[in-house]
Amino acid sequence: MSSLGLEIREQFPILHQEVNGHPLVYLDSGASSQKPRAVIEAIKRYYENDHANVHRGVHTLGSRATDAYEEARDKVAAFLNAKFREEIIFTRGTTTALNLVASSYARSVCREGDEIVLTPMEHHSNLIPWQQVAKATGATLKYIPLQPDGTITLQDAENAITDKTKIVSMTYVSNVLGVMNPIQEVAAIAHRHGAKMVVDGAQSTPHVKVDVQQLDCDFYAFSGHKMCGPTGIGALYGKKELLERMEPIEFGGEMIDRVDLYESTFKDPPERFEGGTPIIAGAVGLGAAIDFLTEIGMDRIHAHDAYLAKIAYEQLSQIDGLTIYGPRDNRTGIVTFNMKDIHAHDVATVIDQEGVAIRAGHHCCQPLMRWLNVNATARASFYLYNTEDDVAKLAAALRNAEQFFDNIG
Amino acid sequence: MSSLGLEIREQFPILHQEVNGHPLVYLDSGASSQKPRAVIEAIKRYYENDHANVHRGVHTLGSRATDAYEEARDKVAAFLNAKFREEIIFTRGTTTALNLVASSYARSVCREGDEIVLTPMEHHSNLIPWQQVAKATGATLKYIPLQPDGTITLQDAENAITDKTKIVSMTYVSNVLGVMNPIQEVAAIAHRHGAKMVVDGAQSTPHVKVDVQQLDCDFYAFSGHKMCGPTGIGALYGKKELLERMEPIEFGGEMIDRVDLYESTFKDPPERFEGGTPIIAGAVGLGAAIDFLTEIGMDRIHAHDAYLAKIAYEQLSQIDGLTIYGPRDNRTGIVTFNMKDIHAHDVATVIDQEGVAIRAGHHCCQPLMRWLNVNATARASFYLYNTEDDVAKLAAALRNAEQFFDNIG
Repeated sequence: MSSLGLEIREQFPILHQEVNGHPLVYLDSGASSQKPRAVIEAIKRYYENDHANVHRGVHTLGSRATDAYEEARDKVAAFLNAKFREEIIFTRGTTTALNLVASSYARSVCREGDEIVLTPMEHHSNLIPWQQVAKATGATLKYIPLQPDGTITLQDAENAITDKTKIVSMTYVSNVLGVMNPIQEVAAIAHRHGAKMVVDGAQSTPHVKVDVQQLDCDFYAFSGHKMCGPTGIGALYGKKELLERMEPIEFGGEMIDRVDLYESTFKDPPERFEGGTPIIAGAVGLGAAIDFLTEIGMDRIHAHDAYLAKIAYEQLSQIDGLTIYGPRDNRTGIVTFNMKDIHAHDVATVIDQEGVAIRAGHHCCQPLMRWLNVNATARASFYLYNTEDDVAKLAAALRNAEQFFDNIG
Repeated sequence: MSSLGLEIREQFPILHQEVNGHPLVYLDSGASSQKPRAVIEAIKRYYENDHANVHRGVHTLGSRATDAYEEARDKVAAFLNAKFREEIIFTRGTTTALNLVASSYARSVCREGDEIVLTPMEHHSNLIPWQQVAKATGATLKYIPLQPDGTITLQDAENAITDKTKIVSMTYVSNVLGVMNPIQEVAAIAHRHGAKMVVDGAQSTPHVKVDVQQLDCDFYAFSGHKMCGPTGIGALYGKKELLERMEPIEFGGEMIDRVDLYESTFKDPPERFEGGTPIIAGAVGLGAAIDFLTEIGMDRIHAHDAYLAKIAYEQLSQIDGLTIYGPRDNRTGIVTFNMKDIHAHDVATVIDQEGVAIRAGHHCCQPLMRWLNVNATARASFYLYNTEDDVAKLAAALRNAEQFFDNIG
């Protein structure tokens, strides 16, 4: 058993409410996590005491805001174990970060005949940007096939990645199946062929200890809002020597060196990629979220989330007519399923009546849905504030739903 | 006199502090405004009660978050008097919004020989994106010249805008000179030649009543953080028929219609341009800021800011060796100046010792600095929470600074 959820729940104000007459059971952290008081208060405190625009001010508030913003960068760098703080670019989130790699780096290195290697489990935001690169450059997309349980094998990765490969981009943790991909091993294969390794860390960063130097990935993207931070902030990690060679794709204030009427030159990373007023309070909130998670310990969070997914898997397996997707083991806090031929939306709507919040739909993974041969799935996702009681309530609500649909069917 | 500042100050927690042993006099709202309690509390309340990811959830929190986000879009549409709510795209801020117009709309319509018309007073974020369009398409940049007082004339606009012009892009209010440009009249000239009118509204939206239908501009960009809203949120207004023809430039979740392994199709605006998890709490905060400003009344705010700038102009004019840039009249709450040959940074640093926060530098307007024949200027910018006493303290601090530099010089 894991006691983390019980210890930590108190710190999340939103969890202490009733929904449809039942205590809220929030099992949709894979879409967005809730925020601890420490994060909400950090944002409030920033606005109440220190706000001004950053980098440009010589007055006291301007310096304090700049310090707060740049300290957040230090926290992200330490959290991912980046070698240099300049390797962290603040972005609106994972989507913007992956698009930056695709639009700037990939478009400049890919040519006709080159290949970009992906998997069919990618989220749309790690798929459509590469389709656009392919369209713009003449490069070809290639997919590492999935095993029947939704995992990939290193042998298939070896087969897919060749000297034609310029980029391998892969999610660390699937947002549908919860499986963890062997990033470090795939990165090694990619590097043997001179290709760069891009990692979609949206689902991994909140749940597992990430070490970009150990993974030896070239780029790593994540969002703050899935890891107890605010909406509208995330980051791209990129190896220094790559970022330094990349052209900016967004142009504005403070990313420039010299601007004339007809030409401009740009600063070094990270400023080069952060034109305009930055997401200052967002970075401060993300920094507070990192402090919060670090104090608890990512290993403990990982173990907790995986444990809840495991007991959910066991309990849900016993419900009549319920199909669970993905492997039994090696998953983070995600359990995805369908109930007979009932649409996942209907399942989610019915259990919402008992206060249980799960997601239903294609989860921005239409190709994976087609591979699973379904239109949609229901997904319960667990995080540090969830408890064994939440799992039991999910199972009970699903049993009730099953009876309900049986009766009306 | 104007009593607004005295009435409203109480609602801004940050203003009630001492800086370097003196009560804070915040005169840097042109860079970023401070936030009223109503905005800070709206963000807190959202995270404490309603947060979940939007658009995808069938559970109760998901619906509440979606409603909150889309209500914010309604508020922005009403605030700008847009004809349709779908004409509002949430972005990270003005910079991202202007880059979207340049990268998507402008690159698709501009060809070699076409012209893009700007002014030399543009902020870098309304300048470098167009340099990039010119570089990518072969179009040429053309500048409407400035009068000695930093204004433009309609005759010069008539001369610059021709049938070759595809886009005219101009700031509504200069962030350095404070002057208001005659957008409605210039838009009419642009339309007579079949060109589109893009407006940088970063400095106008916080200070004047904006009516995009009356201006008849085609695109209008602004940031939330300069108008009492949070950092990291802004919006692009675009006429529906133009947005519908535009390709997205960022690709990810929820902006798609159908995604296959090798191809995808996209939703209609605004979703098409909002891939990935949106800036939900940012939109909620911006909505609260709009409510706050609307309740006070934009006309009253405009009059107040202009009044403070006017008396600041008068008081600063009397200081020995101080040069004020821009016209005496027709300005919003901005007064920009230099003191003898002393660097603006030094002036700002010295008066920060008396708690007075002003900006110093090139204000992301290097071409305008060259036109003014200076490296930098000092800028005091006023907003609804400033008072006549703030102006007096600025003038007193500058008189002290003048003596200080005299003594050490």
